[in-house]
Amino acid sequence: MATEPKKIIIDTDPGVDDAMAILLALRSPEVEVIGLTTIYGNVYTTLATRNALHLLEIAGRTDIPVAEGSHVTITQGTKLRIADFVHGADGLGNQNFHPPKGKPIKQSAADFIVEQANLYPGKITVVALGPLTNIALAIQQDPAFVKNIGQIVILGGAFAVNGNVNPAAEANIFGDPDAADIVFTCGADVVAVGINVTHQVVMTDADRDKLVCSNGKYAQYLCKILEVYFSYHHDAYSTKGVYLHDPTALLVAVNPSLFTYMEGVIRVQTSGITRGLTLLYNKQKRFAEITEWSDKPSVKVAVTVDAPAVVKLFMDRLMDS
Amino acid sequence: MATEPKKIIIDTDPGVDDAMAILLALRSPEVEVIGLTTIYGNVYTTLATRNALHLLEIAGRTDIPVAEGSHVTITQGTKLRIADFVHGADGLGNQNFHPPKGKPIKQSAADFIVEQANLYPGKITVVALGPLTNIALAIQQDPAFVKNIGQIVILGGAFAVNGNVNPAAEANIFGDPDAADIVFTCGADVVAVGINVTHQVVMTDADRDKLVCSNGKYAQYLCKILEVYFSYHHDAYSTKGVYLHDPTALLVAVNPSLFTYMEGVIRVQTSGITRGLTLLYNKQKRFAEITEWSDKPSVKVAVTVDAPAVVKLFMDRLMDS
Repeated sequence: MATEPKKIIIDTDPGVDDAMAILLALRSPEVEVIGLTTIYGNVYTTLATRNALHLLEIAGRTDIPVAEGSHVTITQGTKLRIADFVHGADGLGNQNFHPPKGKPIKQSAADFIVEQANLYPGKITVVALGPLTNIALAIQQDPAFVKNIGQIVILGGAFAVNGNVNPAAEANIFGDPDAADIVFTCGADVVAVGINVTHQVVMTDADRDKLVCSNGKYAQYLCKILEVYFSYHHDAYSTKGVYLHDPTALLVAVNPSLFTYMEGVIRVQTSGITRGLTLLYNKQKRFAEITEWSDKPSVKVAVTVDAPAVVKLFMDRLMDS
Repeated sequence: MATEPKKIIIDTDPGVDDAMAILLALRSPEVEVIGLTTIYGNVYTTLATRNALHLLEIAGRTDIPVAEGSHVTITQGTKLRIADFVHGADGLGNQNFHPPKGKPIKQSAADFIVEQANLYPGKITVVALGPLTNIALAIQQDPAFVKNIGQIVILGGAFAVNGNVNPAAEANIFGDPDAADIVFTCGADVVAVGINVTHQVVMTDADRDKLVCSNGKYAQYLCKILEVYFSYHHDAYSTKGVYLHDPTALLVAVNPSLFTYMEGVIRVQTSGITRGLTLLYNKQKRFAEITEWSDKPSVKVAVTVDAPAVVKLFMDRLMDS
């Protein structure tokens, strides 16, 4: 049975694990990457665009368009938090690669996403791997977007666990909490994958050794950029390995059956000491009073993951290339 | 080996489960109740004082002083949320008992708590069963209080679970989030028992039937006031029983080995849609940046409870009287 691959747009701030996810997507026949859109987060947006173009050149896939996204949060007043201490100053493990030859398309990320959702109603999945500004802008720009978009897969949030920016907030949601609250409550088919799930998916030092021994060009490329990312994890978490945040979220689009999900309403705290906190209402209690979660649309939230299968799929597809 | 009973002050907003906890304390030889202090929450403070006096008269313990606490939150500007729909308009299951004969002492709750902590340095445990205004006032009034108080046991918070006022907040913390943040970060020996723990401790319909059949005067009294509390639980949670919030927290003072604990820093969100949310930093990740949890004192947080033992102790002590 020949199934048409799922059309996906990856909204991304590369970033070491973004690079992993993009290369994994390009090696996954279940999905067709129809564009990359860029956002600040692991790096500033300008550098994210440069890195997105660079990665497509590495993969020999310069046919895929890159649309540059927002340089500022949706409320425009927030100082950006750039995670260069996780990914290196260049976002790709301080390798200082040559500048890419390609250029982004003229459309903005939000315009591109809206246009594609209109062109293929119900058929496009956006895999959002950074702060959610571009997606929120798409929702605000086009009242039909929420109906037209097939699915929005979000790497973001820390559900009932500590965050990774501070004890309250996960980095992507912290990057633009107002945008995140817009996206979680927009009514589209949204699937959230938080660090409560991605922290279960560890690429070990031994896995990296296997990549090093592999002749695959993607494996060899990744080995170059992984050092900074491994060091950061060792210092911050004392883990002998790295979390596969972005590749794990990407696999929700590739093979959703690797996860189990629950449904509930997610709101984001946008101010105060827990700014960026994601709070899922699981509907176990019926509240007598109206709450800020009442009458908001439910989303799906990943709760378990087949971590060994995710790591194996990631390794197999990137070594065999 | 004769051990002197632990001196406790119960800060309370009776409240059906407050009544349970107070009667349980009076039946527990491990503790000596040296005073009740009152606070708004399940009822307004005036009614809490009346109910505290009434309960001591029911128990024949009018020797125990009642000190009336604050009528307003510590910031004084917040509208109170009174949980009369859980406990009845009178706080005691709509039984409309006769007014008590006794009167509260002239001292305020905070003054009484501070005085007792000074009289018996390191020996007093405050068991706080309502919003934390009185305890925060004691901390603000006397710089030595944090050093002098033996322990503060807090029924409050919802750690990594939904709240009971709304998806974010548990009722006692929601009642005065600013006060709660002061208490959690004050540096005293604090033990928090949240609804993640107390929701494991259910007094079933069958347990109530046993109380009804018992001749104990406390059991007979409790049976009168329990109806509203049982109805509320059935409607809100679809449980065949009620949560023993306050008696469970009281038992931390009576027998701490019924629980296991972890240590961490708790902060309270004081504004926005998650106002009243308690967030525990478990110290698993070392953050590169200074956070709002950095350099704050750790507290103990109950994480597991021997629920059958708690229910049995509660039932045994209240039937056998």
